[in-house]
Amino acid sequence: MARIVQKFGGTSVADMTRIKAVAVTVKRELDAGNQVAVVLSAMAGVTDQLVGYAAQTGSVFDAREYDVVVSTGEQVTVGLLALCLQNLGVTARSWLGWQVPISTDGVHGKARIKAIEAKELRRRMATGEVPVVAGFQGFGPDNRITTLGRGGSDTSAVALAAALEADRCDIYTDVEGVYTCDPRIVAKARKIDKITYEEMLELASLGAKVLQTRSVVLAMRMGVRLHVRSSYSDVPGTLVVDEDEIVEHEMVSGIAYSRDEAKITLVKVRDKPGVAAAIFGPLADASINVDMIVQNVSADGKATDITFTVPRGELKRTVETLEAKRKQLGYADLISDANVAKISVIGVGMRSHAGVAQRMFKTLGEKGINIQVISTSEIKVSVLVAEEYTELALRALHSAYGLDSE
Amino acid sequence: MARIVQKFGGTSVADMTRIKAVAVTVKRELDAGNQVAVVLSAMAGVTDQLVGYAAQTGSVFDAREYDVVVSTGEQVTVGLLALCLQNLGVTARSWLGWQVPISTDGVHGKARIKAIEAKELRRRMATGEVPVVAGFQGFGPDNRITTLGRGGSDTSAVALAAALEADRCDIYTDVEGVYTCDPRIVAKARKIDKITYEEMLELASLGAKVLQTRSVVLAMRMGVRLHVRSSYSDVPGTLVVDEDEIVEHEMVSGIAYSRDEAKITLVKVRDKPGVAAAIFGPLADASINVDMIVQNVSADGKATDITFTVPRGELKRTVETLEAKRKQLGYADLISDANVAKISVIGVGMRSHAGVAQRMFKTLGEKGINIQVISTSEIKVSVLVAEEYTELALRALHSAYGLDSE
Repeated sequence: MARIVQKFGGTSVADMTRIKAVAVTVKRELDAGNQVAVVLSAMAGVTDQLVGYAAQTGSVFDAREYDVVVSTGEQVTVGLLALCLQNLGVTARSWLGWQVPISTDGVHGKARIKAIEAKELRRRMATGEVPVVAGFQGFGPDNRITTLGRGGSDTSAVALAAALEADRCDIYTDVEGVYTCDPRIVAKARKIDKITYEEMLELASLGAKVLQTRSVVLAMRMGVRLHVRSSYSDVPGTLVVDEDEIVEHEMVSGIAYSRDEAKITLVKVRDKPGVAAAIFGPLADASINVDMIVQNVSADGKATDITFTVPRGELKRTVETLEAKRKQLGYADLISDANVAKISVIGVGMRSHAGVAQRMFKTLGEKGINIQVISTSEIKVSVLVAEEYTELALRALHSAYGLDSE
Repeated sequence: MARIVQKFGGTSVADMTRIKAVAVTVKRELDAGNQVAVVLSAMAGVTDQLVGYAAQTGSVFDAREYDVVVSTGEQVTVGLLALCLQNLGVTARSWLGWQVPISTDGVHGKARIKAIEAKELRRRMATGEVPVVAGFQGFGPDNRITTLGRGGSDTSAVALAAALEADRCDIYTDVEGVYTCDPRIVAKARKIDKITYEEMLELASLGAKVLQTRSVVLAMRMGVRLHVRSSYSDVPGTLVVDEDEIVEHEMVSGIAYSRDEAKITLVKVRDKPGVAAAIFGPLADASINVDMIVQNVSADGKATDITFTVPRGELKRTVETLEAKRKQLGYADLISDANVAKISVIGVGMRSHAGVAQRMFKTLGEKGINIQVISTSEIKVSVLVAEEYTELALRALHSAYGLDSE
């Protein structure tokens, strides 16, 4: 007997046919002798519609009322799934954030979960009852509904799994698991059976949007084992677990990419203490996330070139912000390039395998792909290349690290 | 300074344009120096859609979960109106049933309001804040959302007005008030300025569906003054008040009709004690509402004809129920007629004016309209006629009682 939290996203509950299919999936787990709690998103598209309504009300934005409106999508699906489960003979009951309660802080629109009262849920699960819990929503200290921000249902599921001390948190989605690379680009991409939280985080933050980054961080911190799997089939998906659970580490687990990048170079910036703060301070104030940063050593010790990347959608704002500070920063020129992509090889195995970065540079060099910026972390090597080389680079690296399926 | 509850129905909040118009209406009342609380329905059509989803889940019907699903429509509109009001510079806050709380009994799907905690709302209203309260929903003793049944928002508004000791409960709808007769049939129908609860009840129960019957009963019991008015204009509508508030009573206030009628005659029923119970007992068990009943005196004291009416939609079930009991009841024949209409003249003034019924019979006789069944109450005379005479009868009576507009 295992205790399992199952989370189904918007496409998995998009209409009544899909919700009924979810009920069958839940029942299968129960019939296997397990205790199950379910966390649901809203029907695909519904939250967007509600956000649209709220946006039409005017320029005054009160996140308290926004939360009242946008939290209704999950309320609908949990009630409907409870009914569908009952129709399969399963005892089920819906739970809203304020009923559990799922206590959050008071930051409406992007609240953080503080605590989940799980005793009553556990008592009911022990009798075979299935709690169907609304994702994305919580209960604030002001006696009002809060929401966790977009994609918050993953976080709800992980937090609930932790509170229930569940053996596993199954994240049902429209893909079969996490892949070694984007299968739309690399035909030989393989489904990964097991991956560490750290690797999953790097993949998630690089645009392999299977799991919300926040939920992976939470799972790692709380030690919740995640199982990313398909709501269309019952084949095993990808387990996201602690490093200890993985016996044999591949050198590289996966290759990720992001086209959401833009590069900026400030030419001949005065090379003196505090210049980096002078550049990146205003960007931070403008809530612009700077990612890769390279500072060239200056030949004469007086001026240096600084290159960095920002999300492509922020390029215009970034340029404006820096132009406004031009006098103060004293740079000679500002060059921007939106046609770049970030390619990353990821794997906890690199810690014990030398030469991962070297193989990356060599492989890209052989294909004639110029590396513009490099950044590394303990489990990741990322390079910035011209966007047009993205597919070529991914396929070459996927082969070079032995990830291709037979 | 008056304290007012404003209730807006589904067509008044059908889309963002209409919700913004509601905000303007609310602000106008505030600007006039009044304290205002608002009660809203769901956007027109939304509740039907949610009910449709619930119906598709299967044959098992758990009203607890049904309530979770269908109560979301009002949650959306209260959040949106609060935002629209804030955009007009009005301090506003949404309130769900469980937040106020609006305590109900545990009969999910058609709960009754037990109590409304109004102290906090009153405190806020005194500071100029507008509580925007979700209609149709309450909070059950099981810590779950309840709903009051279709049209329950009117009841929410009246109960809230009573709890707030409001001076008036304005029911905004898509007509300008209550009319002396259906204006689609009688072109000379006039808007009634003031009407008593009792008269309103008779009109409402006879198909003049401006107000939910339950809400009128509640208003009468709690002494809440209702003002039925148009959400498209600010001309005064119809005040529904206590009899004492109306100085001069017309003999007849209005003429109502209902086509939702069917007539059944049981021929030659054995005329012995207990036969009425034997007939109507099984119908009551089947939840069929019997309305007008006439029993002809039997000539020989052995058999009698019994005629009565039921809602047209229940005719088939009624006939089946009685056929099944034929042996026991021992009637000679069962004749049914679905082509009948009930016409009623209504007015508290008839208590002090003699000859109201007489004038009705005479008027219909002059037009060659045969009266099939008659029933009377203190403030109403109803007759059953062939359905094809409905319009003719209404126009003739409207003139005969001096109700025609100039």
